[in-house]
Amino acid sequence: MNTIIAALKTVRLSEDASAVIILDQTRLPGEEVYVSLASAAEVWNAIYKLKVRGAPAIGIAAAYGIYVCSRQIQAAAFDDFYREFLKIKDYLASSRPTAVNLVAALNRMEKVVTGHPDLPVAELLRLLHAESEAIRAEDAAACRKIGENCLSLLKPGMGILTHCNAGHLAVSEYGTALAPVYLGEERGYGFKVFADETRPLLQGARLTAYELHKAGVDVTLICDNMASIVMKKGWVQAVVVGCDRIAANGDVANKIGTSGVAILARHYGIPFYVLGPTSTIDLACPDGDSIVIEERSPDEITDMWYTSRMAPEGVKAYNPAFDVTSHDLITAIITEKGIAYPPFNDMCK
Amino acid sequence: MNTIIAALKTVRLSEDASAVIILDQTRLPGEEVYVSLASAAEVWNAIYKLKVRGAPAIGIAAAYGIYVCSRQIQAAAFDDFYREFLKIKDYLASSRPTAVNLVAALNRMEKVVTGHPDLPVAELLRLLHAESEAIRAEDAAACRKIGENCLSLLKPGMGILTHCNAGHLAVSEYGTALAPVYLGEERGYGFKVFADETRPLLQGARLTAYELHKAGVDVTLICDNMASIVMKKGWVQAVVVGCDRIAANGDVANKIGTSGVAILARHYGIPFYVLGPTSTIDLACPDGDSIVIEERSPDEITDMWYTSRMAPEGVKAYNPAFDVTSHDLITAIITEKGIAYPPFNDMCK
Repeated sequence: MNTIIAALKTVRLSEDASAVIILDQTRLPGEEVYVSLASAAEVWNAIYKLKVRGAPAIGIAAAYGIYVCSRQIQAAAFDDFYREFLKIKDYLASSRPTAVNLVAALNRMEKVVTGHPDLPVAELLRLLHAESEAIRAEDAAACRKIGENCLSLLKPGMGILTHCNAGHLAVSEYGTALAPVYLGEERGYGFKVFADETRPLLQGARLTAYELHKAGVDVTLICDNMASIVMKKGWVQAVVVGCDRIAANGDVANKIGTSGVAILARHYGIPFYVLGPTSTIDLACPDGDSIVIEERSPDEITDMWYTSRMAPEGVKAYNPAFDVTSHDLITAIITEKGIAYPPFNDMCK
Repeated sequence: MNTIIAALKTVRLSEDASAVIILDQTRLPGEEVYVSLASAAEVWNAIYKLKVRGAPAIGIAAAYGIYVCSRQIQAAAFDDFYREFLKIKDYLASSRPTAVNLVAALNRMEKVVTGHPDLPVAELLRLLHAESEAIRAEDAAACRKIGENCLSLLKPGMGILTHCNAGHLAVSEYGTALAPVYLGEERGYGFKVFADETRPLLQGARLTAYELHKAGVDVTLICDNMASIVMKKGWVQAVVVGCDRIAANGDVANKIGTSGVAILARHYGIPFYVLGPTSTIDLACPDGDSIVIEERSPDEITDMWYTSRMAPEGVKAYNPAFDVTSHDLITAIITEKGIAYPPFNDMCK
């Protein structure tokens, strides 16, 4: 594995298991600051404020987080422990609505508790610890497999465009969308990556350009509105993006702007690949219309990062954090289990 | 005319005709600062530093500018006056060599001088004054006609999306792309405008949102990558954009990102209108491939406006200032002379 990536652990448990330690992504690329989260409020706040972001990373942070908080529950009896556990779970689940991994990870942790009502609390905590580590390990293994599966569709020297950040900062180790890039880099594929800066939070500029540049990958930063000219020039042979939730029909919720990139790719005849673990697939969600799209503060558009406000006071701004890419714009959905093509009936097989 | 727009004159002559007064667009939207330009050096600097921008506005500033400077020429004889006039003209023309309107306006002013070699200087100055006002008035009249022509295609209550700034800040009074919006506002059409922020220079956020909000138009600022979701939601019934150059086949060079908006509009079945005066049509340019695209500094993407650098040091960034929208993506090109539909053979008729 790439040593630079290994050295940069986005989410981990502290040595004494008293806190979740995260790389504060809001401080990148200027500063590499690790933050220690020892309470439910701190974990909630870190997820809400995007100090930790990326659907799988959020899931891992929530799993570690509920374990850390469960250790602080003052209860000897199962019912008391479970009641407190549920409070923490509901609280953490409310931090971000769109990512399925958050609730999925918390549900897995809850099942550990409900599945063992006869065990003493100390033993439950041991199982919760193991489960949180399993969630992280499974995620890392899935990412490598996703990367291998996608790499089988790519050729050396290709230009690859990506939107937002679905690299190791968003997940663990290789990331999802960037996993084939890292694997290709290890094998001398010489990909040329174009990173959309991804307004308003600039995950492409701050995070994707950061982690790829640091890993020695040939990356060129562009503004989101430059994807069209870059594609028209023939510089892009594939688009790879991550995903926050995949509906049963193959509709995909991902970072705002993803659907626009998919439409451009279709126009220019470029394959558009969605990469993510099967845990991102929500079969209970029939289609994209059923996915709740988180709307964030207009200040992120008008004020954030800037030396002074970049829009007149009082002007409205609309700031959806995600959009839904229709399944008919997606060339393939690539998971750890394989490559699913339209009509995406076999995504989980 | 809208009183708010009338009150906000981008470029005008001072009462005593001793200076050109411009609204400094580099200070918007935070500060409304009017700058008085009383020398050739001050006019040159204001154009060069984009304090006044938008091709027509630059032409008007140059016409007023050379009139103001001509008043300061110490010469009684025609030959002496004309020699000094030419020095000022060549100097002002060098401020932005690519802007066609700049040289065109200065050439018109020169013709006033060369056409009347027998008149006394005081009389020449009177004619120069009249010509500069005529340039402004003709521009304003063309904009109004463009607005009327476009408005005939729109219906009350429509959602309208625009990219960059082609409003009164770029032109005079009504602007080009925003002319139908202002005319519609006067007639109670109640348009709902979505303004792309237009990275990296943020003309949409800083200028379009500013001038529309100030004029009482219902405007919502979005990031460029949100155009897709806004269109998908059914909030947009027409796209209006300005243009920097129109090739003979109808290909249009305009602010970077315009081609992407056109592709999205086509995907969602939304009309895409290009608005500009016939002076923007370059029949000597056969198609978009012949248009040289200006590439600007990567710092505009990574540093400009920000409190700290938003991409890692050393990472590449590609920063084209314009892109070309293929004629087959354009529903109509609307000039002061009428509405041209594909294949755009009648644009100048």
